[in-house]
This record gives sequence, structure tokens and C-alpha cells, in this order.
Amino acid sequence: MGADYPVLSMGDNHSSVEPAQGSPDRFADDPAFAVHEGGKLVVRPTRPIDSVADLALTYTPGVARVSSAIAGEPDLARRFTWAPRVVAVVSDGTAVLGLGDIGPAAALPVMEGKACLFSEFAGLSSVPVVLSTTDVDEIVDTVIAIAPSFGGINLEDISAPRCFEIEERLRERLAIPVMHDDQHGTAIVVLAALRNAARVVGRELGDLRVVVSGAGAAGIACTKILLEAGIGDIAVADSQGILHTGREDLTPIKRWVAENTNRVGYAGTMIGALEGADVYLGLSGGSVPESAIASMAKDCIVFSLANPIPEVDPEMAAKYAAVVATGRSGEPNQINNVLAFPGVFRGAIDAGATSITEEMKLAAATAIADVVGEDVRPDYVVPSPLDRRVAVAVAEAVAACAREQGVAH
Amino acid sequence: MGADYPVLSMGDNHSSVEPAQGSPDRFADDPAFAVHEGGKLVVRPTRPIDSVADLALTYTPGVARVSSAIAGEPDLARRFTWAPRVVAVVSDGTAVLGLGDIGPAAALPVMEGKACLFSEFAGLSSVPVVLSTTDVDEIVDTVIAIAPSFGGINLEDISAPRCFEIEERLRERLAIPVMHDDQHGTAIVVLAALRNAARVVGRELGDLRVVVSGAGAAGIACTKILLEAGIGDIAVADSQGILHTGREDLTPIKRWVAENTNRVGYAGTMIGALEGADVYLGLSGGSVPESAIASMAKDCIVFSLANPIPEVDPEMAAKYAAVVATGRSGEPNQINNVLAFPGVFRGAIDAGATSITEEMKLAAATAIADVVGEDVRPDYVVPSPLDRRVAVAVAEAVAACAREQGVAH
Repeated sequence: MGADYPVLSMGDNHSSVEPAQGSPDRFADDPAFAVHEGGKLVVRPTRPIDSVADLALTYTPGVARVSSAIAGEPDLARRFTWAPRVVAVVSDGTAVLGLGDIGPAAALPVMEGKACLFSEFAGLSSVPVVLSTTDVDEIVDTVIAIAPSFGGINLEDISAPRCFEIEERLRERLAIPVMHDDQHGTAIVVLAALRNAARVVGRELGDLRVVVSGAGAAGIACTKILLEAGIGDIAVADSQGILHTGREDLTPIKRWVAENTNRVGYAGTMIGALEGADVYLGLSGGSVPESAIASMAKDCIVFSLANPIPEVDPEMAAKYAAVVATGRSGEPNQINNVLAFPGVFRGAIDAGATSITEEMKLAAATAIADVVGEDVRPDYVVPSPLDRRVAVAVAEAVAACAREQGVAH
Repeated sequence: MGADYPVLSMGDNHSSVEPAQGSPDRFADDPAFAVHEGGKLVVRPTRPIDSVADLALTYTPGVARVSSAIAGEPDLARRFTWAPRVVAVVSDGTAVLGLGDIGPAAALPVMEGKACLFSEFAGLSSVPVVLSTTDVDEIVDTVIAIAPSFGGINLEDISAPRCFEIEERLRERLAIPVMHDDQHGTAIVVLAALRNAARVVGRELGDLRVVVSGAGAAGIACTKILLEAGIGDIAVADSQGILHTGREDLTPIKRWVAENTNRVGYAGTMIGALEGADVYLGLSGGSVPESAIASMAKDCIVFSLANPIPEVDPEMAAKYAAVVATGRSGEPNQINNVLAFPGVFRGAIDAGATSITEEMKLAAATAIADVVGEDVRPDYVVPSPLDRRVAVAVAEAVAACAREQGVAH
């Protein structure tokens, strides 16, 4: 250090973890590592501190007048602190992407990425909070303890079925928006894509029979939102086959699904259920044989979202399906949560919403679908993840819904 | 909203808490409120996300390769996440400035201010974490649960004696720097100022007899660092008078102080102890009569740090004392923690230190004193809080000390 001390620069104060001088850097060949060098986020003041006067207003003694005002009138915190506009991205690292239980430190790059997207697409500050515990009670207590620091809680990459209980308990106890994105972000974008796919094939949602492969966080949430949207019928499969009320091995949430789906009471395999089905929604990994896709109804719809390897090869699917979507980056019809979560939180926060309701999620899905509008085509049922109009439209729709429902502060 | 939606701007997305259009704003007259409008911090990505390629490196699928690498080799988190360079500023809002127990929401502007200073003076990102609990066990558990997200923990404005136990337990359980700034930041700057004040009056620290008024967080920590620095003798007073081993009303920490100070066994009041004393260090509020200051030794030193109203009026003190310092903004010899905490954490983090040791604090105090150097004068015993050289010098000294002590990763 010395006179050239990089006081305000970020990303250059990590000399202790850089490769030793002169030694080759084993990460030099993968640009993903260069992008992550020193981390992907920075916290900065909104105003410079260059004078004694700045210091006396930002910090003592001026700050004491602001703190006193808030102590006397707590609602002023919504105007004079940053908390209402900061989203905590909370994970225990137990279900990170397709990598599984890799722990908090390894999960952090994903949470930093999420925070980057909150900033880029919705202008919201966001702070990754990765946890050293995987205990449900401890996670709930921790989030409640830190909640006064934030205006929203985005739960992320927490394994099922713990994620259901954690989200439910936090929603009950906190008067700020709480959403497990792996459930509801995925569900919102899937519904948006399915609305437009149905338009492509000239069908109504109420006419479609859907097979969902996967009864984890995303599978359950997609099933719920499709039911709310009035889908014709759904059969949901876990690794043991289609969920039906005759099964003895169901968790409470899977039992709920069995009781509210599968009207015909089909009790066989996922492959069998695909025969004559209109929609395949893959959220499970593994692979589906070509014969099963070939057995689906005419003009069927295949959303195969496992990443990086879809359950159904998209080129094969295209031989049979009218619309194919994947989770793959850079390809048409990419089902990417970034279409939902930035706008959902921004809308909820703009409206001062105390929770994110089912109606707000449905409104978000419709808003995403409507950005595509009349341009809808078989390879354009959802907007590009980089389409900046989406977060604006979603935020507007979610905020309007919140105000209409009266769930605002 | 619409086409002019301020997606990337901060501070303009809080329409719901602004004064209603046309109504007068009752906060318009105080510029401190304007500075706090919408909060004082923003989180931003370090690199833009403008293309599909950017998105695929910052988020999925590229981020999965970085997460996988960290899962296999946890130390890589030091290089490829932001956590090692982020300081959490943690408070339960129980002892905020001179305002007392005003709660987490009202404490937040102070924590945001602290985070601004970490950024401005040390180039560190910092996140305010205000807590909805004041229970010692819950605070400790919460900080441990969120610790993987951070590279350092700055405890702030937590009331005594809870602050002692919280800091001690966190230091034991975490392998990252933990420091309660109200204790140690104040102590470091007081020691720096006293070193230079002693030079002004041509005395050695070992010759000085000090009276400390206040046995709270700052009083105890100042007493400890002065003992470590080899001060001649100290008498510490709480509201019941000087701490001595004959008192029956002492908490464990006060008993420790009584046993390690007050060599002569003085058992009277703070005012009585000032007779012939070389240094008065006020950390308590209240006021000290002129006769007591007049009774101090020739060329005495008066540090009267209560804010906003010092215990001893500085103009009165100047009639008797060779050196006078206060906590007042914009005046000479301002004892301001901002001289210590940014550089202390930056140095500890640069060195990969697993804790902040007593030696690192002493090194910080010496570094602050040395910035004044040969320019030392009665009205210049500490640098200006805006002197950007200070954090650089402190960080360098603390990092060197950490490496020498071998407390680095």
C-alpha cells in the first residue's frame, strides 16, 4: 500500500488470495472465473462524503436527528432508510442449481448473481445472505432477526420439503414480501410461456392436459399456479410415478397435490401419462424416451427445463411438438426466472405490499406473456431474459394488483 | 411507470413514502433529512450485464462452474466471492449514539452512515444488519448463522454489559474479524490522541495519572487499551463513584477494572479523584464543575467526549488544560471513530486476519498518532476525520501486525 492505496476501488483488494506472482493461473481459461474475481457486488454511498459538512449530515451529529425522528414515528423509516428498497437473497446452499447441497460459501456466487440481476433489471439493492445452518427453526429465526434491515426476502436454493415450511412460516410472521424464487419465479415464467404457447396452438388453458415431471419446489409451485390459472388437468410425477390418492408414500404437500390433480386417477408412470397429453413440463432431470414424446397429442407443447441438460432433447422434441422451451441460455424460449423475480419484488416494494399474493403472481405471469403480445411465434413464447421492458411491465402489474387487493402499507 | 421507469436509479423508487403532492414537507428545513431521503447506500454489480454472454457468465450456467470449484476447494471463496471484503455493521439499536434504546429501524440511519464511511475511507463494502431481537443468545446465534456472507463483523451501538458478552462469544466462534466499535474504535482513537497530547506536554504515558468518567462500553475499552499501552495509573468512575475493590455493587467487568486500576485504592468520587490528575477522559455525559478541572495538575489534558454536549465546556477547560479534545464535529482535536474502524477492518481483511488482536489495536493507535507526526500542536493531536491518509496508514499497520502475529488465513 502507500500513496497509491486503492481506497475506493473494488476488486483489487484481495491480494492474499490471488495466484502467486509468476505462477500460472489455473482459472485463466474460463471467463466465468474472471467475472467472479473479487466478487460481483459493491456497496457504495448514494452521496459523496467530501467535507466536514457532508460527514456531519451523513453521520454524527446530523444522523441523530433522523434516528430520533424515526424513533418517534416508525413509518418514517420507509422514507429515510434504505431498508424498504433492499432485498435479502437468503440461501442455506442445500439445493444450488443442479449442484445440490454445496453449502453457503459455494452458493454465494449464485446469490451474488441474483443480486446483480435485482440491480440491473429492477433498480433494487440486494444483499446475499448465506447461512451456516440448515435447520428450519434456525433459518426462520435468523431471517426474522435480520428482517428489519430489509424490504423483501428472496429465498433461494433451499431444498424441498424444507423450503415449503420456511417460506410459509416467514410469510406468516413478516409484513414484507417473502418469496422462494425456485418455486414461484419458475412457476410465474412457466405460466407466462404456457399462456403464449396455448395461443400458438389455438387452445385454451382449460382444455390442456399437462404432465409435470418433478414434485420438488418448482414442480409443486408450477402445479399450483397452473391450477389457479384454470388449467384443464394435471398429472404430477415424482421418481415413483404419478402422484395419486392411493399412494401411501406421500409427504403432506404431495398428498395435497394428489388430491387436487389427476382427475382421472391415473396410477401409472410418468411415461404412461404422457400418452395423449398436451403439455410436458420437465423439472426433474433425467431423460424421456422419444417414444413417450411421440405418444403425446398433436400440436403438443414440451417445456424441458432441467439445466444444463434438458430431460427431452429440444431437436428431438421439435419433431413432435408445436412449441419447445428449455432453460438453456442463449436459445429461443428460455424459461429464465430473471423474467419474474426483479419485477415481482420491485412491484411489491413500490406498492408497499406486505406480502406477495397468488393474485400478484398471476398478474406477473400475464404481464410477461403480454410483452410478447402479437409477436407470439412457436420460437417466441417468452421475452428474452435481457428484455428490459419485462421487469417494468411486471412491476407495474404487481403493484397495481397489490393496491387493488389492499395488501399495501 | 412506463417507458421512463427508472430501472437503474436509486433514491427515486420510494414514491409511497414521499409527502403527498402539494403538501408542505415538514423535513424540508433540515438538510440531514434530504441526505437520508431514500437511504444512503446502494448495492451495484461490479460489471454490467448487457449481453446474453454477460448473463451466462454472471448467472447460469457460468456461475455453476465457480460454485462447483468453491464446493471442491472452499478457500477459493476468498478469491471468487465478495464475502471476504464485506463488513456487516450489526446493531440491535439498544445504545444508539446518545439516544439510547431506540430500536432497529431508528438505528438504521447510523448503521448506513457507518457503511458509507467503510466505503469512502477504506474501499470496503459494508451492509447494515439491524436486529429484531435484543437477547444475547439470539444475537450471537443470528450473527453466526449469517457469518458466511461476510468478511468482518462490526458490532455497533449495543448496550453494556451485553456488548461485552456478545463480542467475546462471537470472537470465540468466528474465524473472521469481530470488533465492537463503540468499545475499541473509541479506545484506539483516544490512545492515539493521548500519545500526541503527552508529546505536547513533554510527558511519557507511564507518568500520567488518568481519571476515566464512565464505565460503559467505551470507558472499559479505553481503560484496557491505556493499561496495555503502559499508562501510569487510572481511576475509573461510574455513577456511584470510583471503582475500587471494596465496592459490593460491581458487575464482573467492573470488578476486573477495579482489580487492575486505581493502585492507590481511592474510594471517593470522580470529582475528588481529579485533584492532581493529569488526564480527564469523559465518556459519560453529565457535567463536571470548573473547580474540579481547576484542581487537576499543571498542563493537564482534558478529553471530554460526550456528544453533542461535552461533560466539560471546552472553553472553560482551555483555561486550565494544555490540550483539550471533544467529540464535536468540525472542531480541532475531534475524537472520531472514523479515524480507526475503516483502516482496522481493511488491514485485518487485507492480511486475511482471523481476529483483531490487542496488538493490532495498539498498532492502529500508533499509526493514527504518527499521521500527525511532527506537526503535533495543542490543537492538533489527532488528524482530521476527513484525512484520507489515516485509513491507509492504519490498514498498513494493522495488516503488518496481523502478518507478524501469524493470525492470517
